[in-house]
Amino acid sequence: MSKPFVAILMGSDSDLPTMEAAFDVLEKFGIDYEVKVTSAHRTPENTHNYVVDADKRGCAAFICAAGMAAHLAGAVSATTLKPVIGVPINASLDGLDALLSTVQMPGGIPVATVAIGKAGAKNAAYLAAQIIGVSDATMHQKLVDERRANAEAIIAKDAELQKRLQERKAK
Amino acid sequence: MSKPFVAILMGSDSDLPTMEAAFDVLEKFGIDYEVKVTSAHRTPENTHNYVVDADKRGCAAFICAAGMAAHLAGAVSATTLKPVIGVPINASLDGLDALLSTVQMPGGIPVATVAIGKAGAKNAAYLAAQIIGVSDATMHQKLVDERRANAEAIIAKDAELQKRLQERKAK
Amino acid sequence: MSKPFVAILMGSDSDLPTMEAAFDVLEKFGIDYEVKVTSAHRTPENTHNYVVDADKRGCAAFICAAGMAAHLAGAVSATTLKPVIGVPINASLDGLDALLSTVQMPGGIPVATVAIGKAGAKNAAYLAAQIIGVSDATMHQKLVDERRANAEAIIAKDAELQKRLQERKAK
Amino acid sequence: MSKPFVAILMGSDSDLPTMEAAFDVLEKFGIDYEVKVTSAHRTPENTHNYVVDADKRGCAAFICAAGMAAHLAGAVSATTLKPVIGVPINASLDGLDALLSTVQMPGGIPVATVAIGKAGAKNAAYLAAQIIGVSDATMHQKLVDERRANAEAIIAKDAELQKRLQERKAK
Amino acid sequence: MSKPFVAILMGSDSDLPTMEAAFDVLEKFGIDYEVKVTSAHRTPENTHNYVVDADKRGCAAFICAAGMAAHLAGAVSATTLKPVIGVPINASLDGLDALLSTVQMPGGIPVATVAIGKAGAKNAAYLAAQIIGVSDATMHQKLVDERRANAEAIIAKDAELQKRLQERKAK
Amino acid sequence: MSKPFVAILMGSDSDLPTMEAAFDVLEKFGIDYEVKVTSAHRTPENTHNYVVDADKRGCAAFICAAGMAAHLAGAVSATTLKPVIGVPINASLDGLDALLSTVQMPGGIPVATVAIGKAGAKNAAYLAAQIIGVSDATMHQKLVDERRANAEAIIAKDAELQKRLQERKAK
Amino acid sequence: MSKPFVAILMGSDSDLPTMEAAFDVLEKFGIDYEVKVTSAHRTPENTHNYVVDADKRGCAAFICAAGMAAHLAGAVSATTLKPVIGVPINASLDGLDALLSTVQMPGGIPVATVAIGKAGAKNAAYLAAQIIGVSDATMHQKLVDERRANAEAIIAKDAELQKRLQERKAK
Amino acid sequence: MSKPFVAILMGSDSDLPTMEAAFDVLEKFGIDYEVKVTSAHRTPENTHNYVVDADKRGCAAFICAAGMAAHLAGAVSATTLKPVIGVPINASLDGLDALLSTVQMPGGIPVATVAIGKAGAKNAAYLAAQIIGVSDATMHQKLVDERRANAEAIIAKDAELQKRLQERKAK
Repeated sequence: MSKPFVAILMGSDSDLPTMEAAFDVLEKFGIDYEVKVTSAHRTPENTHNYVVDADKRGCAAFICAAGMAAHLAGAVSATTLKPVIGVPINASLDGLDALLSTVQMPGGIPVATVAIGKAGAKNAAYLAAQIIGVSDATMHQKLVDERRANAEAIIAKDAELQKRLQERKAK
Repeated sequence: MSKPFVAILMGSDSDLPTMEAAFDVLEKFGIDYEVKVTSAHRTPENTHNYVVDADKRGCAAFICAAGMAAHLAGAVSATTLKPVIGVPINASLDGLDALLSTVQMPGGIPVATVAIGKAGAKNAAYLAAQIIGVSDATMHQKLVDERRANAEAIIAKDAELQKRLQERKAK
Repeated sequence: MSKPFVAILMGSDSDLPTMEAAFDVLEKFGIDYEVKVTSAHRTPENTHNYVVDADKRGCAAFICAAGMAAHLAGAVSATTLKPVIGVPINASLDGLDALLSTVQMPGGIPVATVAIGKAGAKNAAYLAAQIIGVSDATMHQKLVDERRANAEAIIAKDAELQKRLQERKAK
Repeated sequence: MSKPFVAILMGSDSDLPTMEAAFDVLEKFGIDYEVKVTSAHRTPENTHNYVVDADKRGCAAFICAAGMAAHLAGAVSATTLKPVIGVPINASLDGLDALLSTVQMPGGIPVATVAIGKAGAKNAAYLAAQIIGVSDATMHQKLVDERRANAEAIIAKDAELQKRLQERKAK
Repeated sequence: MSKPFVAILMGSDSDLPTMEAAFDVLEKFGIDYEVKVTSAHRTPENTHNYVVDADKRGCAAFICAAGMAAHLAGAVSATTLKPVIGVPINASLDGLDALLSTVQMPGGIPVATVAIGKAGAKNAAYLAAQIIGVSDATMHQKLVDERRANAEAIIAKDAELQKRLQERKAK
Repeated sequence: MSKPFVAILMGSDSDLPTMEAAFDVLEKFGIDYEVKVTSAHRTPENTHNYVVDADKRGCAAFICAAGMAAHLAGAVSATTLKPVIGVPINASLDGLDALLSTVQMPGGIPVATVAIGKAGAKNAAYLAAQIIGVSDATMHQKLVDERRANAEAIIAKDAELQKRLQERKAK
Repeated sequence: MSKPFVAILMGSDSDLPTMEAAFDVLEKFGIDYEVKVTSAHRTPENTHNYVVDADKRGCAAFICAAGMAAHLAGAVSATTLKPVIGVPINASLDGLDALLSTVQMPGGIPVATVAIGKAGAKNAAYLAAQIIGVSDATMHQKLVDERRANAEAIIAKDAELQKRLQERKAK
Repeated sequence: MSKPFVAILMGSDSDLPTMEAAFDVLEKFGIDYEVKVTSAHRTPENTHNYVVDADKRGCAAFICAAGMAAHLAGAVSATTLKPVIGVPINASLDGLDALLSTVQMPGGIPVATVAIGKAGAKNAAYLAAQIIGVSDATMHQKLVDERRANAEAIIAKDAELQKRLQERKAK
């Protein structure tokens, strides 16, 4: 079997700055990814064709980012039986419209929805890595190691804080 | 040109009791209509083929009802350049999810959204009649007449209320 | 019959920057339009008289933009039987108040509501063009052509993105 | 000057059961009132004519109840310079749509908004009595007395509760 | 009877810039007003004493502005039987918390709630003027005249817009 | 020092069925409590006097339950420097109005807010027990023991579920 | 490698009727599953131990259902690097609290959130099947086949509707 | 018994600027406090160990600040039987997600929730001081004195305002 990859679809190129957080995470885990600007509404055929093709070429998971009445993830989930991850983008109403349009899918067409905006973009990539990790022990181990490093970073931040607090109290 | 008709699409047959309010209004105005249970997600191809065909056969407007992450109206609007009217159905969150998923469409793919539930079903039909009436003076006149009758019905209700109030005061 | 036109009403001249997005779309399709600053509450008589007059002069559709407790579209819909399109303006509460005041109309007085703000302003114009296009094959064809061009613009943006991504990977 | 009265307007006769709470309060204070079923959208002219006439005949305050995109209070406030009190009716979205449509009025056209539903219906009547009481010392005194009685009723309920609690503890 | 006046209470002096819109309107109508920074929670006794005193001195209406869990208007309404007008201030959650805390009063303790922020501050003053105008024909006439002037200002803005539009078209 | 007790205040006796969940928890921990129906708005003086008196008599914490524009907890917190726990009651808008009116208190007047309705009533009592437990080691130990029992109850429910699932699979 | 299974965790046994929709879907696809009533808050250790153990025994995905401040899915995601699917349960506020508590996870700890309630329960199972299907071609094919059957069921419902409509028109 | 202290936990060091408002209040009352950056999700073990240790060392109350799906306060409350105060941080959706994730705790695991953001940070510290004050008469007296000073500060602000208003009127 060829190496699995992740396909990232965006409804608009204005979603790019948010979604770059996903690129960084995928690169950290050495996961190949493709990025596509394509719209559920304005280029439905292109979206359909790309998803069918990516699915055949071994795409392990689709990440779909869209704002407002965000239908992209749902449309992709209607086209493929691979896991589809939805990232709601804040383009209006603090992203509540995108969140509800992404997560409230009817039975049979799931979208694995993550947080609104940048935190969601990151978590979409982590989730994709976890999905690949289910059958790829090396990837799973990378995730375990990265989480440990992540925890250590927080512990380091706390240590730094303790110093600053002592300075505050010393004043 | 053949007589224009209205196509009503529903994401689920559980939407039927709500949408019958639209049938009644269309029948009152003598407008032909078709009804189709079809899903943006579960039968996307069927939806697409039906819309393309109805469009060619002279459909003047599409009415699309769906609940939750309601993508049906948006998917239909992406397929046709005829006016598409969206009716948000209350299947969860009081229908707020369906309202936002229907109305917050990106530029270029409009959905003419009406109220959540039964009032929206009725107004979808009125709006379709108004759209036909733009170029059909007879239909427009029917709308003018019906509104007058409608107003008289309210005036009659008020007259009835005045009687009940006098009885209340007489007590 | 004289050439149909679109009437754009705004509750306040502060809505102008948002609504210019509608002017651009109407001009692109060669649709005549009139713009009127008039308020459902502060100049109700003026609003009424203008709508009655525009209706007689062949107005095909009204576009009404207002913020907060946005009653303008509803008041216009109560005056005319032509299709009325409502654009909720974000003046408070992220525009949620304007959206609900515009879309939740009672049965018999429809308002075709579009998205909050600029996307809605654009879509109001597209919707008006679609309404005219129901009986005007030339206009309908313009819409079909414009959508194709629109899709190509997205495809071009995607092509550009692919280049940038290759540069990113090359680093 | 003739005795002032209060005019109660309802968008629909289905609002009557809610609004009867207002009748009771007005009767308790011996305030004359008129009730009118009339719609801002379906019978705008009737609404207008009634308000102008009631205003001339000495109406001290208007109480307007409506649900959904509740424009009635705003339309009445645009017609008269007497105080207009708005009661949002819960017909959808828990009454949030009616609340925002009633309260978020633009500068210059105030609506004195009270709570959604029955509590609001009662308070609309209390507020009308307070407005009349500003220049009518007898009415003002009635309000002062009624509030005292009201407080005593709560104190009585508390006394009753203390008995029940002692019984509970005795078990 | 001495000349009636309006008392404006604010929970915090940070509400002052918003509430100055009320001062302007009251001055336009020649209504005397007092302004008090006092808190329902931090200076409850002061608030109580001021309200009792102002009431006795002939205060016709109280305007209360507060943000967050805005209890000021409710606390004042519990102290006086004069009309109390509540202005929700946006200090968090877009002012939704202040709106609900102000408007959702239980039966018997009404607060006449107006819009969130500056529009509400203005309308609180208009409403106070209308309340005074119920028994003061001169004040009522001032309101009628001012509204006419207000309408003319909008008509003038529309005239200006027509010029700008012709220039746009001339390009 | 006399034995500390908890004072439970309710805005209305209709809150009693919800608040009985708190009585049960307090009785389980052997904590004395008083219950008072009293309103921040309708009996402000009574509320004030009761709180001042209970405070002097050794009340350790106040639990205040109210719906709608729930000011009771805030008013009590303005009167005492003992911890005040607020329970939002669902009387409208799913209890969101009561939640925001209770929790969004300005700096200096804290209300320890718990969940809407029955879960909140229970947790108010647990929190009061924890507050007493800060300086009362026996109470603290009771809490530790009860939590363990509570955990065992869930484990027992899980054991029961496993049986039912095996029966389901056996079918 | 042993056959992968899915672990379903519920915060309370009252979530069982909702979650049975997930059991049905998993059984349809022949996926083994375990069900556990365990709470992030009341039995955190049990939850932790079960997740660590299930993870080791080859659990492919965790499905976590909880209402209110739904922390279960997040707590599980903090314990394992397997995909965690969150089902928000409607126990208050229409399930909005559970949705936000489940989906708005910070970067690094993803929860694949699905719709509130029964639709979400079903989709959690579909998503788990899709995750297993990424590396299990037989499972993937089952999903492809089931979707086709699903589409045919909708088409059958539509056929039935056409009959009913013809009867209606025949009347 | 050793002197009680307060432990402040933050999910991220980006919460520090908000939480410094709590430090200031605690220092004003001479309460010792510790500050810890630790995450319910990224460093659950550290969080657990710290809480258990602080509890043993005489921590009187925990203050936990977190944004988004804010689980920190709940996780701490599941670990200790000391009072836990939750401060929702605005990191998205105006802090509504953090508020609901913090306050809507299930029965048995209370979190004493305060306002979103800075006001909440302050009130968390006040609440902690009140909890300590329940059994520490000196601390209680400090709170009584501080509140009086606080009231005087508002009265001083009002005096200043009266001056500015006289200047305004003098113009």
